[in-house]
Amino acid sequence: MTVPTAHLASVGTCLPGEPVDNATLAKLVGIDEQWAEMLIGNISRYFAVDLATGHVRHSLTDIATTAADRALAQAGLDPGDIDCIVMGTATPDQLMPATVNLVADRLGIDNVPTYQLQSGCAGAIQALDVARTLLLARRCATVLVIGGDVCAKHLETDFDPGSRSSAELVNYVLFGDGAGAAVLSTESFGQRIEIRQVLNRLVGLGKKPGQVIDWFGLADRHTDRTVVSEDYKAIEAAVPALASQMFWELLADLGWTPDQVDYLLPPQLSGRMSDRISEGMPAPGARRINVVRTVGNNGNALPFLQLAELTEQWQGPGRAVTVAVESSKWIKSGIALERT
Amino acid sequence: MTVPTAHLASVGTCLPGEPVDNATLAKLVGIDEQWAEMLIGNISRYFAVDLATGHVRHSLTDIATTAADRALAQAGLDPGDIDCIVMGTATPDQLMPATVNLVADRLGIDNVPTYQLQSGCAGAIQALDVARTLLLARRCATVLVIGGDVCAKHLETDFDPGSRSSAELVNYVLFGDGAGAAVLSTESFGQRIEIRQVLNRLVGLGKKPGQVIDWFGLADRHTDRTVVSEDYKAIEAAVPALASQMFWELLADLGWTPDQVDYLLPPQLSGRMSDRISEGMPAPGARRINVVRTVGNNGNALPFLQLAELTEQWQGPGRAVTVAVESSKWIKSGIALERT
Repeated sequence: MTVPTAHLASVGTCLPGEPVDNATLAKLVGIDEQWAEMLIGNISRYFAVDLATGHVRHSLTDIATTAADRALAQAGLDPGDIDCIVMGTATPDQLMPATVNLVADRLGIDNVPTYQLQSGCAGAIQALDVARTLLLARRCATVLVIGGDVCAKHLETDFDPGSRSSAELVNYVLFGDGAGAAVLSTESFGQRIEIRQVLNRLVGLGKKPGQVIDWFGLADRHTDRTVVSEDYKAIEAAVPALASQMFWELLADLGWTPDQVDYLLPPQLSGRMSDRISEGMPAPGARRINVVRTVGNNGNALPFLQLAELTEQWQGPGRAVTVAVESSKWIKSGIALERT
Repeated sequence: MTVPTAHLASVGTCLPGEPVDNATLAKLVGIDEQWAEMLIGNISRYFAVDLATGHVRHSLTDIATTAADRALAQAGLDPGDIDCIVMGTATPDQLMPATVNLVADRLGIDNVPTYQLQSGCAGAIQALDVARTLLLARRCATVLVIGGDVCAKHLETDFDPGSRSSAELVNYVLFGDGAGAAVLSTESFGQRIEIRQVLNRLVGLGKKPGQVIDWFGLADRHTDRTVVSEDYKAIEAAVPALASQMFWELLADLGWTPDQVDYLLPPQLSGRMSDRISEGMPAPGARRINVVRTVGNNGNALPFLQLAELTEQWQGPGRAVTVAVESSKWIKSGIALERT
């Protein structure tokens, strides 16, 4: 029995509303505009919630459905052509039903397996990994893969900025909301991009989480526990090294050399970190695709936003490497793509 | 290339603390003991939280680690023998890090892919499904599969029972906490049980969720939104039908006849419903394995608790069918096992 080929048939994305620039953010949550630009390097992001009023305008279900719709349209597929959905998110709309099943309902997809991965910044890669495995095992032929995050439930808008630590305010500059989707298939649907390898591994043994996002239930919601915290210095220190390791592992696995890489899609921690992260991934001839500076760190959406730009730019044969790092309990992950 | 065989090498379980019977529950949350017994039919359950004091004694990480430890010990494996972990839960300890990665840390497992499925009562089957697919695709050889739920964050203990509707009080009688784990491997490790098939499909198109479990974030925790709700009548009506469909689909898929089924592990909605659910799964010679009456509905743990009892009882060759139904957005799922 031959092993099927996993094609990247299409990519779709969705960013909610209008971009929120640093000047607007400065006015709304009282941060210093220059400080934001200098420390993080992001110049805009999108929010599912209206920061001025606190009104939630988009759910994760909303933006994930739009991204999925666009991916289906780009591949020229109907919902009935999809035989599985895999979604990755750190911020599901509800614990139950899983958001992936609400998206399926909106799309009109039924009678297929659905999987929702609870995952951070490596979640898109994990979802693509599961999808590709389903294709390779011949369990499915055409899988819709979705990734997205919405931080509305954790985004407080009615607070006194003076009472907030700079560590808390960093989150407003760093993060954003968004969703992306891709169709993976054993058929090419006219696309010439093949997913050659996906690697994805926990490497957090004995290491403190770099990021914690907790949730409140009925019983503990009136407490003042810290539910969102980050060790941003630890993240800045670890991500470039893990990204570099994954870059070399992917190349070694496929026998590729750095000069054969035409496109590099590095981890999207922040605008300021993009160059430093790229340094450890020396692909001299590669075009770098970074998006975080304008869309913010929107977690499970980021690799799809990069892949969308890749598929637009990519003409002719070549190779691309995308890497993502999850800094919560430390996961390194990556994809190798080849266009024929 | 031959397709590998997926063996069920071992099962481990963990129930937190001592069983809480209906008389104790009646005293603590003011329900009527006879009403509980008659309506739900469960006589005991286990809670990760001490209902009398509200003190959380066990996290999901705690009980999932214990269950995994027991599964590894039963298979005679070290943590280093595991090359992937797949976990299913509706109630992760935190959104990030995913609980599966904290369990990996406790077990001393590193440098492997980990996946955590956000899933309800079909979650154990979904996790076994993903694990088996990883084996069939030769992506992994020995996978640790975990399922568990802890309702501590939603279990209010300091309330006036008179102010609660019976629909809310039903939850205290119906649910419980627990965890289970299994080792799936292309090697048999001395066990003779093979996983012949796993089916798992969303069938909720256009249907209202039977159950909703939501979460609060920083921004909305002081609101009084309903976060746990159920349409118990809709669930009671739908589960037997979906279970019956899945039973027949599994048999049809493998060409098995009902009289060839030696063990039947039906969906564990509640003690009262077990007989009615079994009626639609007519396996005349099969021994039925029900556990919900004494352990409560502990979601992602239930199929593992049934499988643990199955592996203890099962001597000699034969066939077993296990079915689980997720009534949140309606998923039917099942496994067919064969002992040689």
